[in-house]
Amino acid sequence: MAKDISTREQDYSQWYNDLVIKGGLADYSAVRGCMVIKPYGYAIWEKMQAALDGMFKETGHVNAYFPLFIPKSFLSKEASHIEGFAKECAVVTHYRLINDPNGKGVIVDPDAKLEEELIVRPTSETIIWNSYKNWIQSYRDLPILINQWANVVRWEMRTRLFLRTAEFLWQEGHTAHRTPQEAIEETERMLHVYAKFAEEFMALPVIKGKKTANERFAGALDTYCIEAMMQDGQALQAGTSHFLGQNFAKAFDVQFLNKEGKQEFVWATSWGVSTRLIGALIMAHSDDDGLVLPPKLAPLQVVIVPIFKSEDDIKKIFEKVEPLLKELKAKGISVKFDDDETKRPGFKFAEYELRGVPVRLAMGMRDLENGTVEVARRDTKEKSSQSFEGIANYIETLLSDIQANIYNKAKTFRDTNIHEVNSWTEFQEAIENKTGFLSAHWDGTSETEEKIKELTKATIRCIPLHNKQEDGVCVFSGKPSKERVVFARAY
Amino acid sequence: MAKDISTREQDYSQWYNDLVIKGGLADYSAVRGCMVIKPYGYAIWEKMQAALDGMFKETGHVNAYFPLFIPKSFLSKEASHIEGFAKECAVVTHYRLINDPNGKGVIVDPDAKLEEELIVRPTSETIIWNSYKNWIQSYRDLPILINQWANVVRWEMRTRLFLRTAEFLWQEGHTAHRTPQEAIEETERMLHVYAKFAEEFMALPVIKGKKTANERFAGALDTYCIEAMMQDGQALQAGTSHFLGQNFAKAFDVQFLNKEGKQEFVWATSWGVSTRLIGALIMAHSDDDGLVLPPKLAPLQVVIVPIFKSEDDIKKIFEKVEPLLKELKAKGISVKFDDDETKRPGFKFAEYELRGVPVRLAMGMRDLENGTVEVARRDTKEKSSQSFEGIANYIETLLSDIQANIYNKAKTFRDTNIHEVNSWTEFQEAIENKTGFLSAHWDGTSETEEKIKELTKATIRCIPLHNKQEDGVCVFSGKPSKERVVFARAY
Repeated sequence: MAKDISTREQDYSQWYNDLVIKGGLADYSAVRGCMVIKPYGYAIWEKMQAALDGMFKETGHVNAYFPLFIPKSFLSKEASHIEGFAKECAVVTHYRLINDPNGKGVIVDPDAKLEEELIVRPTSETIIWNSYKNWIQSYRDLPILINQWANVVRWEMRTRLFLRTAEFLWQEGHTAHRTPQEAIEETERMLHVYAKFAEEFMALPVIKGKKTANERFAGALDTYCIEAMMQDGQALQAGTSHFLGQNFAKAFDVQFLNKEGKQEFVWATSWGVSTRLIGALIMAHSDDDGLVLPPKLAPLQVVIVPIFKSEDDIKKIFEKVEPLLKELKAKGISVKFDDDETKRPGFKFAEYELRGVPVRLAMGMRDLENGTVEVARRDTKEKSSQSFEGIANYIETLLSDIQANIYNKAKTFRDTNIHEVNSWTEFQEAIENKTGFLSAHWDGTSETEEKIKELTKATIRCIPLHNKQEDGVCVFSGKPSKERVVFARAY
Repeated sequence: MAKDISTREQDYSQWYNDLVIKGGLADYSAVRGCMVIKPYGYAIWEKMQAALDGMFKETGHVNAYFPLFIPKSFLSKEASHIEGFAKECAVVTHYRLINDPNGKGVIVDPDAKLEEELIVRPTSETIIWNSYKNWIQSYRDLPILINQWANVVRWEMRTRLFLRTAEFLWQEGHTAHRTPQEAIEETERMLHVYAKFAEEFMALPVIKGKKTANERFAGALDTYCIEAMMQDGQALQAGTSHFLGQNFAKAFDVQFLNKEGKQEFVWATSWGVSTRLIGALIMAHSDDDGLVLPPKLAPLQVVIVPIFKSEDDIKKIFEKVEPLLKELKAKGISVKFDDDETKRPGFKFAEYELRGVPVRLAMGMRDLENGTVEVARRDTKEKSSQSFEGIANYIETLLSDIQANIYNKAKTFRDTNIHEVNSWTEFQEAIENKTGFLSAHWDGTSETEEKIKELTKATIRCIPLHNKQEDGVCVFSGKPSKERVVFARAY
């Protein structure tokens, strides 16, 4: 076991924390609930950002930046918005510090009290729609397709690195449209963008679906989501896309003159993913030796470790691999030659396994003689000796294979752990003893949903899109049902 | 005059605001002193970020992210730091809102008062060095070369779009070193990176220098800066790089075991540039018709406007230019074909001039017959008819020429507006009546510096690096001096 990491079986939760901390992804900070994203973790976020940002721009979006602060009164303009979630938040009440007249340090200047308190944004619908009011007059000003990369703060009581922190980084798209159809299309388009990103970059299979009324975003008419299964069988919501109807337009009086010359309220969407995705990435793929990163998001894709007895050995090995380093870089593959003489190869191997570097090459003097190199892949931990000739192409293919293998492994795991249950006894038995999601009939009422949650801690993760329609009875109430929904305990 | 923009001569300050607002770069927000960076302005910031981030990475830096909030007590740990500037800031005192029992809306929950207030970061030295304490034990852990892209808040009383806002976006580098030499080298390296960025990307000539003790960053032993001249002759500080000595290491007790096995305090630097650079970009190059953007930072580099009488004309023109669009994109040049039929070409011309698009092509039916195209460059407003054959290469060269021309124009302006003055009468006369910087002998004392500032509002912008040494007498006190320093009124 590398670096005193708990195993998943011993303590799943501790294993996760160990990977985050010992893998160098993040650290606790002096501020309750706020984390430090360390360079290695941030490098993953940068790769995620680059991929997502490209997909947003391809679908016609542009970036902008709105204020960090929201006047308190804005939050209560959209009634369900404030009811739903905007209560636990950081409140700015003063704007100056002064020297403490009674001693050392500084105190808050009592004379510098704000007339209206400012809230550190927990999400930006209100402050953004307040701007859109000035930007939208006619149908010619629509659509507005804006995304923002930003930090947000929600004063969570129980926090976990990446998964739930008081401050986190995210993107939030906020679009404005002429018609509900156009807004719904946008909501669905972005859901598919998120699903594509999860599957192609994160190697993470997801279920696309809609939330029940209970689980909707506060202020939305419809919330779409992608749900992923972690290795402990729990669900993790990996992205949401909301159809907001005219709620925020009405709250901020944003109307446009339509083609018929009539004033009409604007239709809205919002959608977001956050640094929480890094938590999902870790929990979905990693193992007891450390991180397993899909090559497309790995900050370092290939490491070459020389096996040497002398400085002269290193020099010879470097001469051999130098053209390979260039060849890989030319292919856009990140690679490092680790010639640190103060660490032994075995130590380095464990370190790169912990950090989830997808491909490790080891080369010693015998390899040099034989024209070979040892190739170890992180996902399966398989090692093989390969001819050095043509190794760059071999590695390129191997990285694709690893990306596909990580996805397939997660998909097989997910698919074999969705259990159909048909009675309340089966449901209870399965939620306690089986790993994974439950597919069950539900009568469509919030009462039943809440009761099930209360009794089992399982929530309805989503009603899958294009769900199979079949006659059945609700596992809890016995009332008729037309389709199964996905239940799970969730992060 | 485009779009009711004030001229520089009428009202320089209003001209600037008009360009920012009417050029679509930014907007005021509902929060005092906070701006909205609109998509066109943010696109410039993205280009700046990409260029700078590349340069930071080339010089060995990595990105990370530290908390938005700083415990109040941290700010007073480094004495001069809090004295210097950290007083006007946003203070978080509570973490919850509740429904107002007396009516509508929400109020701050009096029971949710924080034990210690949190300050929204005005800069991150303190919170970062508190983390470095845990990350640094031995010389092997050094150097740490971290940069952060973030938002910061300083409760400025007088704000101006981009130039001085309560919240702004920036990057802040925070590095930790074994020796003072290494830290000073780093401080200087980053100053040169900033100067290179300003000159090569922003087309903005800068003077590299050191600040006087008075103007130093609070907590620094030495502050290096780049200073640029705006078109009204005022100075704008475009970037700073600080040698912090061991001040923050001592404040946060960050020691390392050196190679000799002794505990030693770590040496530090910090350096930053912000969205203020967008303000500098506008003020340095733009004219009374709108923005003039250097091609390397222009979100859109080339626009093609068809001159048409019918839809059929547009179709024919599009067929002709379609291969050109592809060719330009393949060269990495951003280009748009504006086939909007609801706007007249003249309106479009003014709009693209306002927005500072470097190159505009116009093509009508006669051009189609003659195999020509009209090329207009934004910087000089020259128009010429060019053969359509080989136009992509012509444009590529033209963009380089424009980039160089904008730089040279700014440099000539700057160089001809640095005035040597040799007496107090000359100084006073020049600061009132001449545009630009004053180069004058100064006796090296803070008293003289402050007195001059009080009397003329001119500050010492910097002591240029590699400054010519010459015997002289201070313009104010008449005391001996060995070199001239740069005085100016500044943004």
